[in-house]
Amino acid sequence: MTTEKHATEDSGQAEPATVRRRTGGRSARVRAQVLAAVGEVLLAGGYDALTVDAVAARAGVHRTTVYRRWRDVGGLLADVLDAAADDAWGPPDTGSLVGDLTALNQEVYDALADSGPNLTTALIAASFRSADAAAALSRFWEDRYARCAVVADRAGQRGELPGPVDARALLIAATAPLYHELLLLRAAPDPDLPRRAAGAAAASARAGAFGTGDH
Amino acid sequence: MTTEKHATEDSGQAEPATVRRRTGGRSARVRAQVLAAVGEVLLAGGYDALTVDAVAARAGVHRTTVYRRWRDVGGLLADVLDAAADDAWGPPDTGSLVGDLTALNQEVYDALADSGPNLTTALIAASFRSADAAAALSRFWEDRYARCAVVADRAGQRGELPGPVDARALLIAATAPLYHELLLLRAAPDPDLPRRAAGAAAASARAGAFGTGDH
Repeated sequence: MTTEKHATEDSGQAEPATVRRRTGGRSARVRAQVLAAVGEVLLAGGYDALTVDAVAARAGVHRTTVYRRWRDVGGLLADVLDAAADDAWGPPDTGSLVGDLTALNQEVYDALADSGPNLTTALIAASFRSADAAAALSRFWEDRYARCAVVADRAGQRGELPGPVDARALLIAATAPLYHELLLLRAAPDPDLPRRAAGAAAASARAGAFGTGDH
Repeated sequence: MTTEKHATEDSGQAEPATVRRRTGGRSARVRAQVLAAVGEVLLAGGYDALTVDAVAARAGVHRTTVYRRWRDVGGLLADVLDAAADDAWGPPDTGSLVGDLTALNQEVYDALADSGPNLTTALIAASFRSADAAAALSRFWEDRYARCAVVADRAGQRGELPGPVDARALLIAATAPLYHELLLLRAAPDPDLPRRAAGAAAASARAGAFGTGDH
């Protein structure tokens, strides 16, 4: 990841741990300020307002620092998404497949159904304009699918499924209708949608869809 | 629709039918040239290249004609989508629910999996930048869902479903994974995806998902 590489690139082997920690701390603080500024500029003015200079000014950081570390808007957007993935998030364990998928869908719904501009929608919109952002968004989602494979494993262990399933396909079946309704169709948010879409995907899985032999 | 209104707005009641037809013919021809030019400019240079002047030049039509009739880029994009909906398209009747959904998914797949820039992706990307395009895209899709309600009706008549279903929810369940994979995740096109996603949605429906009581 950008930050870690940057934080250590000038560190000699013999450098004391305290110095490395302090450097990492300042580096992490600058990164946090800059990435927060990216989100603020994006929400306030959209992609057209997003320039390295605008981000630097908003973050209170010298523009050469931003250019050196993130290069351009694509680098900034990619790092926002990489930073978002750098967490301990895991899918909630509700005790049933439909419960787990509903909880996941509720997170997607809350991110997308936010009235007014929201960062998730703004980042997805930006992915149509920046190849770096598009690649980072795909990485973010694929990482989330990998972490959520446990949802399918648990359902299998509980005997809810007729056999092993392709967890990624199951997760996309559950969540894709939310992105479609709220992001592409811009339909009025329906608070029951997370449960309904989760129920449909779970029913498919129980009926043998997403089987790993079905490829 | 834009064209019809324009073609008749200066027509007096007593105008002979032949004149109206001729006016409509020229009007329709200009519209076809301009809308084709919108697609060409969009594919060649993206939304940033799309201006009324660029479209007029490409279409070989005077710019004031374009301004008067379409007003701005949003009006042009909306009319491209309205024109696309102005057809006799209907869902193929393959004799089974999974067959019908697979055929629909194949059309979505063919539109999105096209390597290089394709008009469907370009129009969806434009919908993130133009409220008029976004509204027209929603109209286009809702009209397609309405036409496809017959897919659910036929499945019901064949006894494939346990009860009446929300056709729109079923259609979104079938198609949304394709938009998600190809448009948002930018995954490598998998030629088996249309069938798999259709199969999963059909399995849900057979298991009682999308029931009209489930709201």
